[in-house]
Amino acid sequence: MNATDLTGVTALLFDTYGTVVDWRSSVADEGRRLAREKNLPEIDWDAFADAWRAGYFPAMDRIRRGEQPWTTNDTLQRNRLDEIVEEFGLGDIGTGLTDEDKDEFNRVWHRLNPWPDSVAGLSRLKSKFTIGTLSNGSFFLLANMARHSGLPWDCILSADNFHHYKPDPEVYLGAVELFGGRAEKVMMVAAHNYDLKHARSFGMKTAFVARPTEYGPDQKTDLQAEERWDVITDSIENLADALGMDK
Amino acid sequence: MNATDLTGVTALLFDTYGTVVDWRSSVADEGRRLAREKNLPEIDWDAFADAWRAGYFPAMDRIRRGEQPWTTNDTLQRNRLDEIVEEFGLGDIGTGLTDEDKDEFNRVWHRLNPWPDSVAGLSRLKSKFTIGTLSNGSFFLLANMARHSGLPWDCILSADNFHHYKPDPEVYLGAVELFGGRAEKVMMVAAHNYDLKHARSFGMKTAFVARPTEYGPDQKTDLQAEERWDVITDSIENLADALGMDK
Repeated sequence: MNATDLTGVTALLFDTYGTVVDWRSSVADEGRRLAREKNLPEIDWDAFADAWRAGYFPAMDRIRRGEQPWTTNDTLQRNRLDEIVEEFGLGDIGTGLTDEDKDEFNRVWHRLNPWPDSVAGLSRLKSKFTIGTLSNGSFFLLANMARHSGLPWDCILSADNFHHYKPDPEVYLGAVELFGGRAEKVMMVAAHNYDLKHARSFGMKTAFVARPTEYGPDQKTDLQAEERWDVITDSIENLADALGMDK
Repeated sequence: MNATDLTGVTALLFDTYGTVVDWRSSVADEGRRLAREKNLPEIDWDAFADAWRAGYFPAMDRIRRGEQPWTTNDTLQRNRLDEIVEEFGLGDIGTGLTDEDKDEFNRVWHRLNPWPDSVAGLSRLKSKFTIGTLSNGSFFLLANMARHSGLPWDCILSADNFHHYKPDPEVYLGAVELFGGRAEKVMMVAAHNYDLKHARSFGMKTAFVARPTEYGPDQKTDLQAEERWDVITDSIENLADALGMDK
């Protein structure tokens, strides 16, 4: 933690996928359960989770470029699931996943499990700060995830609130406006350098929480802070320490 | 409670001023404290609270009619305070309220106290439903109020999220969209018949919580339900009972 003055910060907004919840193991574990239940062919469920997630950025980018009207992430993920079910050979009529199975499997993103430090860290931070999401996930999905995983958010902010996906400026500026218009009172917390870079460009404070296994053991990106963020740490518990919370 | 099927309801959205918090006594009590502290002339602080609140609807209506660009409620209330401080003779230079005093007094709306049944009722409802605000109050104000009063919201939705004030359709339709687009899964809870009327017109479920002293002992409006709302009751604890929550 460097010497930036953080005494004015009143709200902490968290990126969610990867920063607060471990999407990869949650999705792969649920895939394995589904495979047993439905007698699906044996596949690499970690690779399946990666492939599902990999469709996320191009789909959002099409919307960010205006090539497609606003579509919530829940729908983008459901569409992507259709593609990868075919790619992984899980869609055969009679022996594969039905549309109903896929609707249900898509809701795994509403049931992502937190990293081990997330709930305890957030609970400590909540005693002093207003804590919320600032995520590309659907609003409804984030509300369901909070209930599933016991994430004690004071509020939920989603790309849905702005009809823009991060890193469009509308998301960061919109969030700052909701918190009274003073960017320096709002801190973005993320495991991804790009997210913090955009947040900082609008005057928000920044905290990097390293999640070096978000993309599995061979992760290549975001292994460390790429700028001098206001806080640089490796768990939400340690973020609470850095911000002076009681244990 | 009539025989409407409410089994599909997953989210309850609450009007806040009057429905969850007792703005009138909160504002009047803080006015009396301020008067003692600043040696202000003796005035009727209940009437002052009523006058402050009375400016709220015309100010929002100007925005709803497009005569004024989007302005958050916090600012509308601050502007109204300037007017009534003069009307009540509290603005005299040297002996009255300074701009700084007024900025601070305006934040009383962030510190409104709940009705005696609100926190207990909401806590019970939260065990089954996603609970949130759907209020014309500023987002930031609602977040601060939740912390001040221990209101255990899962999420906060404000006119700020839509840049429209209730009863503009954008507010109800926007909230329903955020909850996945199925209006019948979302219930509006309010002490005001007009709010429920609009919510119902978009397919939302409705619960009326009578607050016959919101405007003081001589209240004339909203003393009772004016339509057969899905639930009709007189406290949030009793709403929890009506929706089958454990005690």
